Formats: sequence, C-alpha cells, structure tokens
Amino acid sequence: MRLATIRTATGTRAVRIDGDRAVETGHADVGELLAAADWRATAEAADGPVHERAGLDYAPVVPRPGKVICVGVNYGNHIKEMGRDTPEYPTLFAKFPEALIGAYDDVVLPAASEAVDWEAELAVVIGARVRHADEATAEAAIAGYTVLNDVTARDWQYRTLQWLQGKTFEATTPIGPELVTPDEAGTGLDLSCAVDGETVQTANTDDMVFGAVATIAYVSTILTLNPGDVLALGTPGGVGHARKPPRYLTPGAVLTTSIQGLGELRNTCVPEKRA
Amino acid sequence: MRLATIRTATGTRAVRIDGDRAVETGHADVGELLAAADWRATAEAADGPVHERAGLDYAPVVPRPGKVICVGVNYGNHIKEMGRDTPEYPTLFAKFPEALIGAYDDVVLPAASEAVDWEAELAVVIGARVRHADEATAEAAIAGYTVLNDVTARDWQYRTLQWLQGKTFEATTPIGPELVTPDEAGTGLDLSCAVDGETVQTANTDDMVFGAVATIAYVSTILTLNPGDVLALGTPGGVGHARKPPRYLTPGAVLTTSIQGLGELRNTCVPEKRA
Repeated sequence: MRLATIRTATGTRAVRIDGDRAVETGHADVGELLAAADWRATAEAADGPVHERAGLDYAPVVPRPGKVICVGVNYGNHIKEMGRDTPEYPTLFAKFPEALIGAYDDVVLPAASEAVDWEAELAVVIGARVRHADEATAEAAIAGYTVLNDVTARDWQYRTLQWLQGKTFEATTPIGPELVTPDEAGTGLDLSCAVDGETVQTANTDDMVFGAVATIAYVSTILTLNPGDVLALGTPGGVGHARKPPRYLTPGAVLTTSIQGLGELRNTCVPEKRA
Repeated sequence: MRLATIRTATGTRAVRIDGDRAVETGHADVGELLAAADWRATAEAADGPVHERAGLDYAPVVPRPGKVICVGVNYGNHIKEMGRDTPEYPTLFAKFPEALIGAYDDVVLPAASEAVDWEAELAVVIGARVRHADEATAEAAIAGYTVLNDVTARDWQYRTLQWLQGKTFEATTPIGPELVTPDEAGTGLDLSCAVDGETVQTANTDDMVFGAVATIAYVSTILTLNPGDVLALGTPGGVGHARKPPRYLTPGAVLTTSIQGLGELRNTCVPEKRA
C-alpha cells in the first residue's frame, strides 16, 4: 500500500494511492492517519473522494512528525571514503519539522549559508508506539518507507561540534512523495541523487550499517517512538562537501532524489526571500 | 506574572499563580495558553477555579513543546575549567518532549546507562512566533523563564560525536515549576544545583556567553520559533562527570535545582522499571 499527504484547495488530505488515482482516507494527513489504532484497515478500506495521481501537490508525507531522528555515518562506502572504522553505535542527531517540505517543493537556500549540500536518504516512518523494542517488535512498528534528502548547511554544521544547526534550516528537507508499506517496498533498494541531471550519489540500502529495524530498536532504548515519527537512515558517499573542490547547491539547481520502488523527490533550489 | 501547568483529577490546567493560590485560565496547559494570540491578557484576566498553591502537582510547565533546543558550553566558569576558548557561535543540540518531567516528578535513571549526570540550567520559553529576529524582536518574543535540569547519560552522550542520544532519555529532564514573565524574573539570577543537599553547581546567569535574547536571535536565523518552544541555556561548571573521580546520580538521590526568583525543582532519582 502507498499513502500520501496531498494539498487541496480546502486543506491537506491523507490519501491511498491506487495506480493512477489517489483516494481520500478521511484523515487530514498521514501523521493523523497513523495515529489511529486501526490505520492499516482504515487506509485499505478507504473509499473517499478521488484525485488524479498525476499532478498531485504533495505535502511532506508526515507534515508534523513528533520527532525526526537522523542517523549519520551509516553507509559502508561513505565510511570507507572518509577513512573511518565501522561504528559500534549509530550516530544520532535531530531535525525539526520546520525543515520539512513536500516532494516537489522548492528547497530554500538559506541566505546565511554559502555551503548547502545534498544527502539522499531512506527514511522509515513509525506506525505503532514502541519502547524497548526487540527486533520483531521494531519491525512490526514500521509503517513504511519514504525518500528524504537531508539537505545540510555545511558551514553551519561545522560551526560547532554539534551538527543540529546545519541540519534544520527551515524548508530545506524534502520528504515523500509517498509512504510505501514494507510488503510493497521490499529491501535492498537502489538509491540515487542527482543535481541538474548529473548523478552525484548512488548506493544500495543494503550497504547501511544500521538498518531500519536495528535503528528503531536502538532509539527505542532511549525513548518512546510514536506513530508518525521519522527516522532518516543516513547518506552514502558522494556529497558535495567531500569533493575537491567542494560543490554546493546554487539557486536554480534541480535536486532529484530517488529510491527504487519508493519514488522520487524533485526540488528546485531557490534563494531565501526575506519578508 | 507566574504561570504553571498543573495536573488535576480531570486533566492538566494552565494556571496563573497569585500568591498562595493558582487560578485556572481556561487553557489545558501553558503551551496551549501561549499559542493564543492574546495570552498575556487572557492569563491576567483569568478568573477560573482556584487551587491552593501548596501541594500542586506540577506537569512540565510546557508539556509538549514543538522544539526543545539546548545550548552547550555557555558559562564562562565552565569554559574556563575545561580549558576552552570562548565560543564564537552557540553550540546547539536537541531534546525531545518525551524527556520532560514535572518539577517534583521522579527522574528515571535509564537501565542502559551507568553515568547519569546533572546540568542545572535557565530555560527561556517562547511566547510569539519569530523568524530572523533582531534583538528587540527576540526580547519581545520571550514569554518567560523557568528552571530546567538537562540530566544527561554521559556514557551515551559520548558514544558518538553527536550528543543527542545521551540528552533525551525518557523522563529525565525536569522543567518548571512555573514560568515567570521577564518583568518579574529580572536578570543576573543565582542558579544552583544540589544532590542530597550538597551544593554541586553555583553560578549567576550573567556568566552566560549567549543569553536568552542572543540565543533566540541566532536560532531564529535557522528556523521559526513558535509559542511554547523551549531554549535551555546551558549549564555552569560543577557537573559530576568532570570530577575526579566522576560522580553520577544513583537511585534514591534527591536532585534540587534552583534559580533565584524562579523557583526550585526537586526530583528523586529512581531506577527504570521495565514493563
């Protein structure tokens, strides 16, 4: 099953995608849908107003997650190119919901940064409340997978030892277009990122050190994960900051982020306009 | 004016504190109150049911902040004892609302950690939406101040380069008891932390490198701050981890965190019970 949050003239709607149609589920967004105890049955049975899938205006698939937790340093090829050892524990950092944008929205390049970079990532969305989860419980708590680009202001990321301030600039992080349930998503997915059509990152999600299940189990040792929470599972090698010379996103650049079977984000970079 | 979120038999209430009385404002909690455009006037005029202040059961003063952003390395005496230079930029990291507890609630010592430490802090709560704030706008966006203890699992904080996982264990971070508006709070406040009655941290908030106004202005360059958001402004020297030998919180320890004129947190440390 594929779910999305779409914008309509009268607000957002959580929809189920059926081929070339999008069927309203009765919930305002996928976050609200996932908070319903019987969300799978509700979504499967939904028979609301129908939209054409082509031309949908996608909001962030979960517009206001309670938590967005990101994993750093999580792809073998990226770890190797950085000359690091395979980590014993996942590196975790946060992002706030204000950073999120829809699948085709513009990425706002902050006026305060001169080094905005791409980071294509697989994201997993939580579908059930979990704490102290073992692997089976963690797996059962997965609502589905989606595509995220952890667009990062490198200059701000490295101003201090803590990365948060470079990771959560407003309207920088596309997520979507759709949430794909695990049965339909499968595993071992090819992931890629392109800038103006030139491929800059490619990897397979099997190369992740900490997969979705291991990450959920680990994080749930720390605190409760709730429906709609998002875990972004790290980016592979090929970021612009690691190039010599470094390469960053510029106004007008089109950033494309794709994961096999999940879908594609396509975002144009625009300069920040100050009100 | 002093505001609090209290627990009653029928749910939480935002109250205004009048001497030894607490007057209900009609909002469920201080976060909801602050989201109302006219919150100051509403709170000042409130004339709802009255509770005795003595014996109030305080919830976290804002139970579900949209964001909790913490500043690290922010007190001159702490920077000096660590042999560091005065930072050019604030170090920022996140905490999630699941970490928050009320002023007299138990601090849950995670079973997974053997190094839980104290960090007494002044926190500022946002009362108006701000982005790209200058100093005057940042100052006007302050709803008030409160007391927070950024209780930290040092072993998890230092597992990786990013501190988040040691900073956001469930039910570890007391905040409250009350929100004190700037006119009543004043500045240059003495702060202290005690364990079982022994003072372990003392400082004055004037020793902060980045005060509330500067921090709000800085963070608002990155993203929008909304009513109810909490910024925790860092801890002074005297943490247990820096002692030789290090000293950590143990079951039964009573942690007291006080700021002059704002109030006191008093929390008993209890071992985590697994369901």
